[in-house]
Amino acid sequence: MNLKDIKNPLFLKNLNNKDLYRLSKEIRKFLIKSLSHTGGHLSSNLGIVELTIALHKTFNAPDDRIFFDVGHQSYVHKILTGRINDFNTLRQIDGLSGYQKISESEYDCFEGGHSSTTISAAVGMAIARDIKAEDYHIIPVIGDGALINGVAFEALNNLGYLQKKVIIILNDNGMSISKNTGALNSFLDTLRVSMPYNKAKQNYKELLNKSKVGKVAYHVSKTLKDGIKLKVIANMFTELNLDYIGPLDGHDFKDLIRGLNKAKNSPRPIVVHVITKKGKGYKYAEEDSLGKWHGIGKFDIETGETLSKENKDEINFSKLVADEVYNHMSNNKNIVTITPAMVSGSKLDRIFSDFKDRSFDVGIAESHAAMMAAGLALNGVHPFLSIYSTFSQRSYDQFNHDLARMNLPVLIGLDRAGIVGEDGDTHHGVFDIAIFRNLPNFIISAPRNNFEVNYLVDIGFNTNHHFIIRYSRENAKLLQKNNYTFAFGKWLTIKKHCKKVIISYGIHTNKFEKLIIDNDYDIGLIHALFIKPLDYQLLAYLFKNNIEINIFEPDIKAGGFSSSILEYANINNYNGNLVKINAIDDIYILSGNINDLMNKYGFNYQKYIENIVK
Amino acid sequence: MNLKDIKNPLFLKNLNNKDLYRLSKEIRKFLIKSLSHTGGHLSSNLGIVELTIALHKTFNAPDDRIFFDVGHQSYVHKILTGRINDFNTLRQIDGLSGYQKISESEYDCFEGGHSSTTISAAVGMAIARDIKAEDYHIIPVIGDGALINGVAFEALNNLGYLQKKVIIILNDNGMSISKNTGALNSFLDTLRVSMPYNKAKQNYKELLNKSKVGKVAYHVSKTLKDGIKLKVIANMFTELNLDYIGPLDGHDFKDLIRGLNKAKNSPRPIVVHVITKKGKGYKYAEEDSLGKWHGIGKFDIETGETLSKENKDEINFSKLVADEVYNHMSNNKNIVTITPAMVSGSKLDRIFSDFKDRSFDVGIAESHAAMMAAGLALNGVHPFLSIYSTFSQRSYDQFNHDLARMNLPVLIGLDRAGIVGEDGDTHHGVFDIAIFRNLPNFIISAPRNNFEVNYLVDIGFNTNHHFIIRYSRENAKLLQKNNYTFAFGKWLTIKKHCKKVIISYGIHTNKFEKLIIDNDYDIGLIHALFIKPLDYQLLAYLFKNNIEINIFEPDIKAGGFSSSILEYANINNYNGNLVKINAIDDIYILSGNINDLMNKYGFNYQKYIENIVK
Repeated sequence: MNLKDIKNPLFLKNLNNKDLYRLSKEIRKFLIKSLSHTGGHLSSNLGIVELTIALHKTFNAPDDRIFFDVGHQSYVHKILTGRINDFNTLRQIDGLSGYQKISESEYDCFEGGHSSTTISAAVGMAIARDIKAEDYHIIPVIGDGALINGVAFEALNNLGYLQKKVIIILNDNGMSISKNTGALNSFLDTLRVSMPYNKAKQNYKELLNKSKVGKVAYHVSKTLKDGIKLKVIANMFTELNLDYIGPLDGHDFKDLIRGLNKAKNSPRPIVVHVITKKGKGYKYAEEDSLGKWHGIGKFDIETGETLSKENKDEINFSKLVADEVYNHMSNNKNIVTITPAMVSGSKLDRIFSDFKDRSFDVGIAESHAAMMAAGLALNGVHPFLSIYSTFSQRSYDQFNHDLARMNLPVLIGLDRAGIVGEDGDTHHGVFDIAIFRNLPNFIISAPRNNFEVNYLVDIGFNTNHHFIIRYSRENAKLLQKNNYTFAFGKWLTIKKHCKKVIISYGIHTNKFEKLIIDNDYDIGLIHALFIKPLDYQLLAYLFKNNIEINIFEPDIKAGGFSSSILEYANINNYNGNLVKINAIDDIYILSGNINDLMNKYGFNYQKYIENIVK
Repeated sequence: MNLKDIKNPLFLKNLNNKDLYRLSKEIRKFLIKSLSHTGGHLSSNLGIVELTIALHKTFNAPDDRIFFDVGHQSYVHKILTGRINDFNTLRQIDGLSGYQKISESEYDCFEGGHSSTTISAAVGMAIARDIKAEDYHIIPVIGDGALINGVAFEALNNLGYLQKKVIIILNDNGMSISKNTGALNSFLDTLRVSMPYNKAKQNYKELLNKSKVGKVAYHVSKTLKDGIKLKVIANMFTELNLDYIGPLDGHDFKDLIRGLNKAKNSPRPIVVHVITKKGKGYKYAEEDSLGKWHGIGKFDIETGETLSKENKDEINFSKLVADEVYNHMSNNKNIVTITPAMVSGSKLDRIFSDFKDRSFDVGIAESHAAMMAAGLALNGVHPFLSIYSTFSQRSYDQFNHDLARMNLPVLIGLDRAGIVGEDGDTHHGVFDIAIFRNLPNFIISAPRNNFEVNYLVDIGFNTNHHFIIRYSRENAKLLQKNNYTFAFGKWLTIKKHCKKVIISYGIHTNKFEKLIIDNDYDIGLIHALFIKPLDYQLLAYLFKNNIEINIFEPDIKAGGFSSSILEYANINNYNGNLVKINAIDDIYILSGNINDLMNKYGFNYQKYIENIVK
């Protein structure tokens, strides 16, 4: 059948294995071609083609609830549930979401974006199902990378106790975004060994060699009635009182469908361990161990080259920060780098390859990452904690109860702060200012170019304080020469004006600066290099001279940066109405490219200036 | 020796087992007597007397780092490190902290209050030690209740991978604050069985009977060289690549000291499983399965009765909320209650005993608790999530990314909001308004009496929204008659005034009301029953009539309630300087009783009114 004609997954019931393999091939071909035009999450979807087909063949969605942890690997599910014709709008405004979306289809019963939440959600769903005496299956699909996050473990522990029927599909590809580390991964190795397929075995040979726990694992093989050899293993899952079957070859329909049927008929909660190969069917993605093909922009199918415009005057912020941290690590053995699974995304590759003993990828474990940083700081080592703004929400308690309360020196790089674009509502880093500003003693800064980054990294390492540098997914300016003097807590006056100024921070200042120079707009511009503390002296000057203060803040308004300026005005009895705020007002920003989103949500730089000037 | 003469733990080196038992007895006697006067954490400290002594005999603090998860079980450690003479000031302003405190002693190398952080901290400490090529032991002591929290698992997983030498003492008493549930607990049962001491075995017989995993666990007994029988078990810890010894009898010095020495000499990270009895040596505490004796006020040693003043006009807030939720659960089978280990603290006992199928204690797993609530709401069941304000900081990401973003109907009871008293800086629930106010669509309310609680619980269950009711550890007013009409988002004008009003919320309004009535102060009073949304109509009236708005907010100021009023004034071009704010300004409030703290930090009700009136 033509993929474009798929309305729902019912047609799968009549297909035999040969048909299914043909379908898989077509879907892979479509995905590679379609994503080469739009960009998106390629590798994880290529890895899960057969598994998704087998799930929809075995179970009856939407009655049975099939849902995906994080959800960026739900493209095949979208194709099978009649959404293929929207792929040209993938991740654009009003287009097909890159994640599951309840509003998009009755087949999407759940939404995520942050990892490791599906087992907890499944426990809640199963309780609800049983209270209502309804009868359907609940099938969260979770990757091995997501499994190490604490909330997944809390959920497994609770599920084993409650004994609600949930079928957990462990989609095990040995990767998060990049290659997994952690003891659980080694443990999974011991299970991976027992997969009876040579081809798949081969893929894990290397991993296997590293495994130490293999020697103590306790395997009970038994031949199940339906004739295929599944393993029931006394492992961590069974210790948590969950049944376990697997590992299944995630690219073999016979194995998959028999295993899934077995799980379907099990009376108890069960983990189905499926081995898949991330990127399967596209050689560049298959060979990728760093995560380049995890989420990508447009690319050339033949060469595997991504089509991105380069600009010599700009540089990736993560790289800029990582390079300067690298310099400090070179000169100071008491600095270490920590990331929760974002080595590639945050451009930490060089740090990780050159400072093996002082760089730590803890996996998708944001709370532990922050708490481990606290332990390092307590013992006199200065950590650089690199974490995406949106994921730092999982470290809030550690930032508060541990780092801030004990006043520990940790330099925090909040990557992808602000509106991030296509990843959408689950990923915009727009809450960090509001939630971290309330923490006693925290310093928060927002640079816009290489000189500012270098200055902030330098004082960040030389202060006895927790110190946040937040930076955008968009590029920093790469300057040859710096015209400003930096000082702690001081803002930069880019252009003076006696009546009206714009205050912005981070990359936004660059955009305003260019517009004001190019168009010679009659307005002042101040760059708030520090979000906390405020530049009290400069603010006092503005208020005392009755200068209109226009704050451009494409981050959440409630409790944010502009709110802190209102608090300052209030304390000092200044006229708070001089402050004009443009910020995100109590909504979630959806998906789309950054420019489109900025325009849609009222953050068009040019219009903003024009409105003020006129 | 006289306990009062202890300066440091060095004296332990010369004591034999008989001496140690005598010392244990004296310490228990002291603890019971001292806490009967001051209140404090009794049970957990009684349970850990021999273990703490054995740790200080075996290791050399402060070089070796002995530290306690949560830290409320560090009283014996405080006695052994020369702090016994301060116990009369326990948990009071400038007194001995109820937790470990770095500023208090060189023997306190870590501080906590929220559970499950010590393994992560230990990983960080161990990395720092090894980078600096230093040589000492790192020994976190963590309870089995704390072990199920996700961050502890993330840390175990990372430690097993990094293979840093850390000695984890698993203090296993089968309890969190009340009895533990969860699959991990059943798994620990299977280990507990193997403890070769009949007396201790007996304590766990009942638990053992419930264990299912016992049948699959794989035990390798081996007789260790030093002659005692320890078990090395292929269990969850070894699967995570950590060594394991135990279980040890936590009240037997021979067993403890041999086991600890074994761990000391092990080259690898190791978990030492120690079975203790919470409350040991004081019968009322030993018999307590609900957690009454976990943290207590003054009590009569003979009768075990706690000495608290009753007041017929007041009622415990948690009880009030729980009773009204109980009523709704009685009438609506689609309501469930969830708590992370606070059945007793939040007075949920009656709900848990009468609605066994609809009440869920998930253990100390705040993230899972919130996420499971999301799953329930997705499938049409309305959860009541009862959680302490301070611990809800661990659910921030679930509140944001899941509840708020998907706009799910969950009623959240934020217990112990505001200043909580003696538990101090780690426990004050003063951040919730600032962090949850920035979440799109969240409703936040703050009642002061039974009628308001009933109204809020009612609309909370009848709205299709996530809805927070925050309430104090201090009592609510118990009224026979209600004089007010409630409406969503509407504040209550307790007393009108044409020039100056106080706006407060929660119990604070009760205090002001009494003072204003008793003293006939010439000032208005408004009760902000809703923190979000604000009562825009009433606020507009106040601003338009130039009425001075005094906001009494003993919660964090940055981004808090008063900050939202400034934002409102700013949008509407009202005079923000009519707003006078009294809130907590960028500091952590320390320990002490609530009244003392309110006075110390500028929240004396009477003085506040007098200052405004004059």
